[in-house]
Formats: sequence, structure tokens, C-alpha cells
Amino acid sequence: MNSFISMIRNGYSDTIPVWFMRQAGRYLKEYNEKKGRMTIKEICMDPELIAGISYDPVRILNVDAAIIFSDITIPLEALGYKIEFLPGGPRIINGYIKNHDMKDIIYFEESNFKYKIYDAIKIFKEKYHFPLIGFSGGLITVLSYIIAGGPDSNLNLTKRSMLSDDKFNDYINIIKDMIIKYIRLQVRAGVDAIQIFDSWLGYLSPQTYENYIKGHIEEILSEINVPVIYFSTGTSSIIEKLSRLNVDYISVDWRLDMKLARSMVNKKGLQGNLDPLIAAYNLRYALKETSDIINAAGRSSYIFNLGHGVIPETPVENLKHIVNFVHNFNQ
Amino acid sequence: MNSFISMIRNGYSDTIPVWFMRQAGRYLKEYNEKKGRMTIKEICMDPELIAGISYDPVRILNVDAAIIFSDITIPLEALGYKIEFLPGGPRIINGYIKNHDMKDIIYFEESNFKYKIYDAIKIFKEKYHFPLIGFSGGLITVLSYIIAGGPDSNLNLTKRSMLSDDKFNDYINIIKDMIIKYIRLQVRAGVDAIQIFDSWLGYLSPQTYENYIKGHIEEILSEINVPVIYFSTGTSSIIEKLSRLNVDYISVDWRLDMKLARSMVNKKGLQGNLDPLIAAYNLRYALKETSDIINAAGRSSYIFNLGHGVIPETPVENLKHIVNFVHNFNQ
Repeated sequence: MNSFISMIRNGYSDTIPVWFMRQAGRYLKEYNEKKGRMTIKEICMDPELIAGISYDPVRILNVDAAIIFSDITIPLEALGYKIEFLPGGPRIINGYIKNHDMKDIIYFEESNFKYKIYDAIKIFKEKYHFPLIGFSGGLITVLSYIIAGGPDSNLNLTKRSMLSDDKFNDYINIIKDMIIKYIRLQVRAGVDAIQIFDSWLGYLSPQTYENYIKGHIEEILSEINVPVIYFSTGTSSIIEKLSRLNVDYISVDWRLDMKLARSMVNKKGLQGNLDPLIAAYNLRYALKETSDIINAAGRSSYIFNLGHGVIPETPVENLKHIVNFVHNFNQ
Repeated sequence: MNSFISMIRNGYSDTIPVWFMRQAGRYLKEYNEKKGRMTIKEICMDPELIAGISYDPVRILNVDAAIIFSDITIPLEALGYKIEFLPGGPRIINGYIKNHDMKDIIYFEESNFKYKIYDAIKIFKEKYHFPLIGFSGGLITVLSYIIAGGPDSNLNLTKRSMLSDDKFNDYINIIKDMIIKYIRLQVRAGVDAIQIFDSWLGYLSPQTYENYIKGHIEEILSEINVPVIYFSTGTSSIIEKLSRLNVDYISVDWRLDMKLARSMVNKKGLQGNLDPLIAAYNLRYALKETSDIINAAGRSSYIFNLGHGVIPETPVENLKHIVNFVHNFNQ
């Protein structure tokens, strides 16, 4: 059995599984060639292309799982949000600031979702017979794009809305519903696991997480019936709380010592956590940290990954070496 | 005795001392009036003005300590760096990218430091007889401005340089030397304590902190003979390591539960950690979190503060209420 599948289902495998967040990305010549001048949205209209882009890193890096190519804002258009992808990230034209009353914003319906993620998953699984991870943005992370209309520095606008505007609940409800339905779609199409990318969760204080967000995350998680990996950054201090959610693996950023992480996750699985900048800029040191990380994490209930996405400056050779190193790792 | 002085020297006081990072800042009408169209650099040439701006929050908010008005990049001009203050923060014109070989960059000498921080501290202490905190940027934080020429997103360029360029050591040495001398200058002028603002330290992995930075921070700290508060953000996972440094208080950001923080700081003092956005946007909730924070931190070896600087959107009344609440707090 493939090591990723074995690990995520049973907590062990002969070799340590490894994949990289944003492994189908700009650091990869093949990705840039396939993308050409297409936008993310155009790619997401072409299921064969999505499947191919998603599989390339498997072929090139020898990683143990693929993740379906897409973007966390892709399902938002079905709600009536207008998205543009700019170099600094996606922009929502009619988000909270410009459209506080949610004019023309509706609940997610598959019939309104035009992107070919479902077909791409089907094609990928039929063509490659390889483990495939589906994904969604996490609640506060997707909300932050809607609220700020783009990246929300320090979650300033998102927290302002959360702390002082009753309307925020309407936003919570429609996004929560979207996340649940969008994950269901991917599970029905055949993904083997779901990763939730809640990159900005770490901007909340522990109390604010508990008081404003946790219950909603629990609702989302209760609707997923495949293994779930929960990723966030800046959450070192609430990893213990996150591990009590109905998730299988906690994906931690590079800030957290893996030994400490292991002591906090209540027997849940761990994924991570090499600093993507170390992977990019110093292979020798990257392999040393990789070794330290694996020794600290232990070989059970553990998936190797970076602590955040691969950055564009990363040499492909570095990632190949890291994959090889992890696969041949002996304590 | 003033509660801040009593607390930072002896670990206890009748009331809990409170001050706010960036308490002399743009949220304050009086600051904006005094600043007018002056630049930060122009203000820093006028010691009476610096002293007055530094004292205003004491008068207006009733906080228990002032912090000298300045900017962490202010001492860099004495090294030959050319600084401009833009709305997004300071820019270094001839930093690492544009001037890798450090042409015309020299070690810090007081005779080359034209800003009136020393005089301002003298004036403040003579005029107001009130506790005054001096400050410096932390090593990696100041370095990040030099390396990137401005805010360094994810510390990308700083880490690249640290991980792959031997020249980085020259940068470390000249900045470390500057920090030591600039702190000495402030101590000689009469500050009662030093706070080191190492805002970006949390972008390093725990191993990278240990391997590349810790020894240098220890060198800096060994040179300071007044109480030291060490502030950083995103460092929840290395608070225990930081508390083993030769510091008196650890100032933690809002991400860390204070109970957890207390368990990690090895009997060092704690400062913090209300989310500045909560202070700005919801007074009622802010007072609730303030209460939780104080109860978790305990009343010994504890200074109330925010988890980062006051944001410009903050109503002055909110901060007044918080100060009053802390001063009257009974467990």
C-alpha cells in the first residue's frame, strides 16, 4: 500500500510519507510551462490540465501524495463573489467592504460552481491511481479574503468585523456552508483525504478562537468522512486545542519544535514542518533540520511536509533530495 | 514607589503596572498635533519634543511607565545607512540588496549619532521624575530592515542571507555592536529599564534561533545593567528558550495563553498580552480578556500590556478604561 494512505489511515508505514504544500507551483518549470499565460481560473476550467498539473510533482519529486490543483477562493464565485487573481494574491471585488449587505450573494450550490474540480479529481484517480488530497481554505482564512477583499494584514479588518459587527455571523454561515459543500464535492469525486488550509488562524488569541470560531470549525469537521489534515500557521500555542478537534492530522508550521508538538497533539497525527525558506536556500542545513524533525516527530502517525507552501525560489533539486532523504531515513 | 519600578525590580507591587507599546502614537490626538507635518527624524532632533511626546500618554491614560519616543531604525544612520520613513514603515536606501559590500558603512560611534535621544531622556527624567523605558530593536528585526531595505515579508530575504551568505556575519556584527552601544547610551542617560523589540524573531524555526541567533542575543544582553524586557511576536513555541536568556521580563504576544506562558518562563517576569485589535474594536470583550489574562498571569512578576503595539484605530477611551480596569483589578 502507498505510504501516505497507510499512514493517514493506520498511523504507520514502511517509509515516512512525504508531500509538499504548493508542490504544484511556480518553483516548477513544468508548472510554468503548462500554465503559460493562463489564469488560475482558466486552468480550473480544464479538468485534464488540473489533473496533469496535480500529478507532475509526483512524477518529478517522487512524493507520496498529490493535492488537487486549485485555489482556496475558487468556490467563492458560486456565491456571487467576483474574484481576480493578482500577483499579490486573489482580490474579491464585491467583498465585505464594498458589499456589506451581501447583495447578490447566495449560498453555495453545485449547479452554480462552474470550475472542473470534480471532473479533475475523477480523471486524476482514473488515470493515475495515486493518492490525492482535496482541500479547502479554513473558515477564518476564507472569511479574511471576503472581509478584506484580499490579504488582510494582521487580520485587522476581519477581527474588527468579528468583534464589532453582528453581520459577521451571516458571513460565517455562508462561508461555513460553502466549505462543507465544497469538501463534500471533492470527497464524492474520490479524494483520499482533505487538508484544510487555515493559514491565518494564528492571528486569533486562544480565547478568541474558543469564543468565536471553534464551534463553527467543529461543525465543518463533523461533515467530513475521509481523513482530515488541519493546517495552520502561528498556532503553536493552540495546537493542543486544535488536536482535540475531530481531525486526524495536525499540520504545524516551522515555528514549533516537533518534540513539543508531539507532546501536545493528544495522539493525533502530525504533519510538517521544515521551514520552506530553509528548503529553498540551504540544502545541507535543510537535511539536518529534516533529520532533527523526523527524530523529534517519531515515525508513527507522521507525514513529512514543509511548515508552509514551497516558495517560488526553491530549486527542484532541493526538494528531490529532501524526498529521497525522508524515504531513506533510518533513526 | 511607582508600581512599574517596584514590579520590574522586585516582582511585586500594590497595583498591577500597565503601559502600552506604541502608547505615544497615531491613535492619540495630542501626538498627531505635536507631530504635525514633521517626520520621525525631525522629531528625533528635538529633545524637548521627544520628552513631551513620551510623557503625554502618562498624563492622558494614567499608565505607569513611559517609553522614550523614537524608532528602531533611528541609530542606523550613524552607521551610514540612509533611512526614509514611508507610510508602510522605514526604508533603507543603501541596505544589503543595494550595498552588499557595505560601502561607507561603519561601526556605531556616539559622535556620529545626531539624534537627541540622550538629551531627551535627561530632560524627561529631570522634568517628570517618572519611570522611563528605553528601547532598541532586536537583532534579527533590525537586520531584517537592513537586509530587505524595509519590511521583509516572511523574513524571506533575511533568511536567505542568513542561510546562504557568509557576509551575513558582518551584518550581524555591526548591528549587534550598534544595539549594545545604543542601549548603553540610553542607560547612561537614565532610563529605568530597556525593552528590546524583536518583532520578527518568531519567523525563525526553534533550531535556527538556536543555531544562528541565540549566541548573539546573549552577547547583547550581557552588556545591559538595567532590567530588560524582551518582546517578540510569533514566538509561542520558544518562550521557554527565551526565558532562559539573561532577561527580567518576557513580553508575549496575544497568541499565547498566559497560563501556558507562566508555565514556560522559568520564574522570569511576564508582560502582555491583550490583542491590540481587541483593545481597538470591542471594549467590553477587551475587559473580559484583560480579566482572563491577569487571572492567568497572576499578580506577581507581571506587567500588563498589549500583545503588540496600539493600532491607530484605537479609541483613547478604550485604553483609559483598560488602565483603570487593571489598576482596580481584584482577583
